[in-house]
Amino acid sequence: MKLRFLGTGGSWPSKRRNPVSIALSSGPTTLLLDCGEGTQRQLLYSSVSPMRIRAVLVTHLHGDHILGLPGLVQTMSLNGREDELRIIGPHGTARSWEAALSVCAFKCGFDTPVTELSPGEGTEVDGLIVGSCQASHSVPALAYRVHEKDRPGRFDVEFARALGVPEGRLWGELQRGRTIELDLEGTRSVIAPSQVLGPPRKGVCIVYTGDTSPSPEMVRFSSEADLLIHEATYGDEYEAQAVEFGHSTARAAAGVALRAAVRQLALVHTSPRYSKDDGHLKLLAEAKEVFPHTIMPEDGEELEVIR
Amino acid sequence: MKLRFLGTGGSWPSKRRNPVSIALSSGPTTLLLDCGEGTQRQLLYSSVSPMRIRAVLVTHLHGDHILGLPGLVQTMSLNGREDELRIIGPHGTARSWEAALSVCAFKCGFDTPVTELSPGEGTEVDGLIVGSCQASHSVPALAYRVHEKDRPGRFDVEFARALGVPEGRLWGELQRGRTIELDLEGTRSVIAPSQVLGPPRKGVCIVYTGDTSPSPEMVRFSSEADLLIHEATYGDEYEAQAVEFGHSTARAAAGVALRAAVRQLALVHTSPRYSKDDGHLKLLAEAKEVFPHTIMPEDGEELEVIR
Repeated sequence: MKLRFLGTGGSWPSKRRNPVSIALSSGPTTLLLDCGEGTQRQLLYSSVSPMRIRAVLVTHLHGDHILGLPGLVQTMSLNGREDELRIIGPHGTARSWEAALSVCAFKCGFDTPVTELSPGEGTEVDGLIVGSCQASHSVPALAYRVHEKDRPGRFDVEFARALGVPEGRLWGELQRGRTIELDLEGTRSVIAPSQVLGPPRKGVCIVYTGDTSPSPEMVRFSSEADLLIHEATYGDEYEAQAVEFGHSTARAAAGVALRAAVRQLALVHTSPRYSKDDGHLKLLAEAKEVFPHTIMPEDGEELEVIR
Repeated sequence: MKLRFLGTGGSWPSKRRNPVSIALSSGPTTLLLDCGEGTQRQLLYSSVSPMRIRAVLVTHLHGDHILGLPGLVQTMSLNGREDELRIIGPHGTARSWEAALSVCAFKCGFDTPVTELSPGEGTEVDGLIVGSCQASHSVPALAYRVHEKDRPGRFDVEFARALGVPEGRLWGELQRGRTIELDLEGTRSVIAPSQVLGPPRKGVCIVYTGDTSPSPEMVRFSSEADLLIHEATYGDEYEAQAVEFGHSTARAAAGVALRAAVRQLALVHTSPRYSKDDGHLKLLAEAKEVFPHTIMPEDGEELEVIR
């Protein structure tokens, strides 16, 4: 699974960070996690093709998470897109998107069906499993868990050759989990996939919180994820504001990562007040005191998540 | 009058050009001409304070001209703005803005009154005179003419001293156009403003077309403007498309400038297809063949317009 951090800022843009949007790609499928204003321009600096985006997962209806969507959709349409783009979000997303479509003199050339999820509900996008949980924010908000389906184990070419399976169609059958029969110099032989395949490969799993205060529910929801992308609007000095406005400090986000036993933590949605003079390094340091395996991606950074 | 070209591209962003927005400042007053997606981030790279913007002149309701407005307004509000921001546009602007305000979970902290203009109608913003005319586009669209009021002539300090007017309050009276009386060593003397002021200074006048095909009406409307900011979506090779979609070639825009006898022409809203490898220079050359005093501003460029 590959993540491209298109925008990593919170509230409003700074020179350093665009409002938040993250492209998640698994095989041929790409999802967007939120879509702040300017996302379509950020995409120009990435290796993501906008036409390949299958769905946008909207965490909540604040402008810094959704105002890039109308422009992105219009540009896709002007460039001839015909494939539908799914929009997945909390209750209210359909009404919001309907309003967004009526702002401009514009007729979209493809469908943009909306799936509204209640916290805890899930859906599937091109084989990627999407789960949700309630985030603790000032408006209805969801966090998302996206995981790849498990794949069959690695095909062991040497074992297959030693068993006398000829290269070609039969290798494919075994890779797809089917038992085959062989006629080896007159002797009938049955070969099971387990004889040539390694253990099933677990799919990669990431959690994206959107805007939230830390919560026991978020700890449970993030349990053992390969990557937790958690908001970190503030540093320690604004802990009170974080509680008041439904946000997290970097340290509190690291606490969630620690208790959820995730493999890695990526902090996003930092307040523009930290955008100057590497002010974000203070937040990173505070988080690392709690959970050392923490990163704070810049706009444009890519991250390969493997197991 | 000072212009800052925040965005100079058409249709959708390129790496080189953001969708169109131009900040116009005269004294303490700033207006925005259109507000494409990403304008609030472009403002960060300019010397314009978003809080000083008094009004946004919307030419028409296509996304590349208006989708930056919701985010800009939200950021102003989150930063404590209380002064109203006027939105001026063609019929349909009020309904569009109402829809835009309902997209997000957000309550604006200041008023955003909308003034809809029929082609030919005008308004005034903090002493700046705004006129409109119909543009020839695929949807209802206005061009705008903004001019400063004429100011009194320059105060001639040497003349005032020679006439015996003491420095201070009486200088101010004369500058404001009032006749004064003096008692010069027992002799009563009447001094008129015309004795110490130069000729009235004409205000600067600019025209911004938004999206349009060239038209006789636009020539009349632009007559003798100090600066004509005209769209130039295409080069010569797309003349047919320009006609079909209600746009202009650079050469046709220069033709309007020539016939209107403007002092300078600035081309904006170039198609993203010209954004690579200085492709826009071709358009500039085509325009200059017709009207030599043509410029093609880059994003971030500033232009002082004087008479």
